Amino acid sequence: MTTAGTGFKPRNPEFAAFLARYAAAQGYLAMLGVQFAGCAPGQAEYRLRYRPDLGQQNGFFHGGVVGGLAEAVMGAAAATLVAVGVNVVGAEYKVNFLAPAQGAVLIARGSVLKPGRTLIVCRADVFVADEKGEERLVSIAQGSMAPVGERG
Amino acid sequence: MTTAGTGFKPRNPEFAAFLARYAAAQGYLAMLGVQFAGCAPGQAEYRLRYRPDLGQQNGFFHGGVVGGLAEAVMGAAAATLVAVGVNVVGAEYKVNFLAPAQGAVLIARGSVLKPGRTLIVCRADVFVADEKGEERLVSIAQGSMAPVGERG
Amino acid sequence: MTTAGTGFKPRNPEFAAFLARYAAAQGYLAMLGVQFAGCAPGQAEYRLRYRPDLGQQNGFFHGGVVGGLAEAVMGAAAATLVAVGVNVVGAEYKVNFLAPAQGAVLIARGSVLKPGRTLIVCRADVFVADEKGEERLVSIAQGSMAPVGERG
Amino acid sequence: MTTAGTGFKPRNPEFAAFLARYAAAQGYLAMLGVQFAGCAPGQAEYRLRYRPDLGQQNGFFHGGVVGGLAEAVMGAAAATLVAVGVNVVGAEYKVNFLAPAQGAVLIARGSVLKPGRTLIVCRADVFVADEKGEERLVSIAQGSMAPVGERG
Repeated sequence: MTTAGTGFKPRNPEFAAFLARYAAAQGYLAMLGVQFAGCAPGQAEYRLRYRPDLGQQNGFFHGGVVGGLAEAVMGAAAATLVAVGVNVVGAEYKVNFLAPAQGAVLIARGSVLKPGRTLIVCRADVFVADEKGEERLVSIAQGSMAPVGERG
Repeated sequence: MTTAGTGFKPRNPEFAAFLARYAAAQGYLAMLGVQFAGCAPGQAEYRLRYRPDLGQQNGFFHGGVVGGLAEAVMGAAAATLVAVGVNVVGAEYKVNFLAPAQGAVLIARGSVLKPGRTLIVCRADVFVADEKGEERLVSIAQGSMAPVGERG
Repeated sequence: MTTAGTGFKPRNPEFAAFLARYAAAQGYLAMLGVQFAGCAPGQAEYRLRYRPDLGQQNGFFHGGVVGGLAEAVMGAAAATLVAVGVNVVGAEYKVNFLAPAQGAVLIARGSVLKPGRTLIVCRADVFVADEKGEERLVSIAQGSMAPVGERG
Repeated sequence: MTTAGTGFKPRNPEFAAFLARYAAAQGYLAMLGVQFAGCAPGQAEYRLRYRPDLGQQNGFFHGGVVGGLAEAVMGAAAATLVAVGVNVVGAEYKVNFLAPAQGAVLIARGSVLKPGRTLIVCRADVFVADEKGEERLVSIAQGSMAPVGERG
């Protein structure tokens, strides 16, 4: 992904290291096989290779996987902008499916639109890529992430 | 769940058998361990026991699991009303998280509000239950499922 | 509407009087002709008679009116539960249209599902009624309202 | 707005004239004072000057106006791509409010992401501009528009 930020200033200078830990600490993302593929202030990218157990009845990525990855990457984008010791949880999100998610790799890119104090509003675009890396947009999402509490 | 219907008339007299196959054919739901827990015309229920690999960083069900189960059960509710040979795919959905999904079992109940020709509009409520079966509402969802094509 | 509450306890004993003022203070609702039709703790109802200038190209209530009334009534339902001096603003909402909003009166009913500290999550159902008062569901909504600050 | 399109090819060569009529035929948009401010294939822009009767309790544009304009401009963007004689109605939409809509003019820009046969999926950004034309993003939306029937 582009390393160009979106003009937001991170409050945690170690946000990239925090992001890598944040992704790794989520058992569900590890089980799916989600790879943390990069971040910038207000942006994050996740990637996930197809396996049959990520599919639905036609052999495409399941909608729950596509929507869940969109939600997760918005959380990650939000997490690039929070202060040290603050966690991020999802408050709400909305997903539209544009096309069947048929391909080798699912790529989700999240961006922060508004880093509010109680809600961080984000968008995500989800693509499938074939083995040559050619991408096709399959889903778009919009949602709010909530910065919470202090980490121990 | 209650077996009382919502006043909708199924077009497929074998809708319950179709639903059981529909759920089983989705590799992603099988991997998660989702149990098909019953249906009625315009209604369906899924259940899922907690495992650490379904969790997020605090040990609760991951938002992607909660939202994905909500989407899946709306698809199942919609699938109770389609004609023989018609499949159901998600078009769009929206999820609000009300409380941390901390508990032994996740229970998602979907209902059809409007079985349209091109879109079947649904709602879902997602609960966590403790080992005694006491339920607490943790998420609500709303979305559109699309009946598609003819199965071979 | 039923005056039975939803089990929520109002923090402002004068919530019904607050609600009437809250609705009247919104110039946009007054311009549309919205009538405040009742409330209970965690619930509110708005009504609006059809006029051609509330219509779209086919002479039905415009989607912007239907969706806006759904959002407004969720704000009103949330406002029944806030402390004295606290205001309510919309954070986000989602609307599905189920059928053309063709009828004499638009009726929106909002309910609180979760009265959180930073977000009050609500649902709304919007009906059209004919001159005999027969109702038909035309839209469903889900959204988050935010309690804000102290009134002067 | 930029007249650069989004790569979509209009099926109606007279789409711009159709759009002007489409906007003018909606009584509700006329009552609000909405100005059709331009279009390109897959894109449209609406503008609306502030008046007190478009406000909420603090004197900002009401959420119902902001969300309704977002929905309307997504319908307009979708309408640039439909065949002659086809109408566009909203199926569903989702709005996040990012900041109070306080300003002289509300500007909504809609774009088509996916011009499907039964659903045209769109996004919208809503800005307020001050008297000098300086813009600030106040709301983002995402939704599906449905192409319907044949005009007489």
